[in-house]
Amino acid sequence: MYKETSVRSVMKTISWRFLATLTTFSLVWIFTGKIDTALTVGGLEVIIKMIIYFFHERGWNRIKWGRKHIEPFVVWITGLSGSGKTEVARIVTEKLREMKINADHLDGETIRDIFPRTGFSRDEVTRHIERVGLLASRLEKNGVFVVASFISPFSESREFVRSLCNNFIEIHLATPMEYCEKLDHNNLYSRARAGEIRNLAGVDVEYEAPEDPDLILDISRDGIEQTARKVNFYLKKFM
Amino acid sequence: MYKETSVRSVMKTISWRFLATLTTFSLVWIFTGKIDTALTVGGLEVIIKMIIYFFHERGWNRIKWGRKHIEPFVVWITGLSGSGKTEVARIVTEKLREMKINADHLDGETIRDIFPRTGFSRDEVTRHIERVGLLASRLEKNGVFVVASFISPFSESREFVRSLCNNFIEIHLATPMEYCEKLDHNNLYSRARAGEIRNLAGVDVEYEAPEDPDLILDISRDGIEQTARKVNFYLKKFM
Repeated sequence: MYKETSVRSVMKTISWRFLATLTTFSLVWIFTGKIDTALTVGGLEVIIKMIIYFFHERGWNRIKWGRKHIEPFVVWITGLSGSGKTEVARIVTEKLREMKINADHLDGETIRDIFPRTGFSRDEVTRHIERVGLLASRLEKNGVFVVASFISPFSESREFVRSLCNNFIEIHLATPMEYCEKLDHNNLYSRARAGEIRNLAGVDVEYEAPEDPDLILDISRDGIEQTARKVNFYLKKFM
Repeated sequence: MYKETSVRSVMKTISWRFLATLTTFSLVWIFTGKIDTALTVGGLEVIIKMIIYFFHERGWNRIKWGRKHIEPFVVWITGLSGSGKTEVARIVTEKLREMKINADHLDGETIRDIFPRTGFSRDEVTRHIERVGLLASRLEKNGVFVVASFISPFSESREFVRSLCNNFIEIHLATPMEYCEKLDHNNLYSRARAGEIRNLAGVDVEYEAPEDPDLILDISRDGIEQTARKVNFYLKKFM
């Protein structure tokens, strides 16, 4: 977090004074025609106004008015493995950060590495999503904007997360299964079809599509970049 | 989060201009003796400088220099049940907030209610603390100052949390067992002694005291308020 230091206020005071006194000096010179009066007024102004300006600046730092409060949100991106969640979420997060927004990206894969020992059974996935939801909502409550990309196949656990958050925005990446399976980035589909892994949404676990998501998008139609742009455009209405 | 609106900059511009032009007007009047020259210079100054000031203000809003960056930290308060962790942590968090610091208090009891279905066996407690550590470190990485109050009896899990955080401050509330047990707020000790509950640190599970904590404090000696004050005083060196 950032704090306005006194030194910064001093430097602002000086930069302003230079501009301002130049103006005063010029005006007095023009209207009196006397350079010595202009210099005297300008000189005194430098000293007096620097002092006033410093206190004016510090005073305003204590005033909250006019600092627009933007309510943080949790953008929850759900969809099949390979639907483009991680890539879209990463771009969305970057764009938010470019807008000077304190945003964090929680991603299924990276979070699994750090939330230790979580399995893939229905019960374990549900508990995992519940914990991620707690994490997301706690970040949100502390002013962090969250972009979460999780398969999160079960409606019930998504609704649980919604109930924890103040401002939950659900985005369904409804990229068709055939498209996801054709690319098969991590060979998850082929391994699931071969019976090497279990509980893959869309293969041996049903993916419960959101009933009323805020947005439905599809990277097979729009591509990653355009999909992310649509998300960011939608988010503008919350900012 | 807060954003400096243009309207705020306009209001600052006006309040400053009032003070500044009054000064210029007075100076010109004093040194020329002519009120009409003073009014002309003052009048033109109002218009020209308001414009310059507005852009000066917006320009500085883009400059990062002089905004002091304070690195967030995680204050981890460990100790027996009844050692005063929750109360001390609450006061410490409040004091941080009074200093305009974005601080959050994670407390053993409240977090248990929201991290669902966590048991009290050694393994479950360890996993619970690991998850809380992830939560704390993620908050920290996003600029939130964390005060955590957990019995967290096992060195290993506390060290795991330390490894996740950038700036981990360990505080041992070493209030003597007899004192904690005498007060016995939630009747935990009497119930543990009666065998009604299990895995209470200090009774049937060893409390592994930190080997090299940043602070060792004791509410039986200092009281809650004074203990919290000592914590806040110590934290000043990180701010």
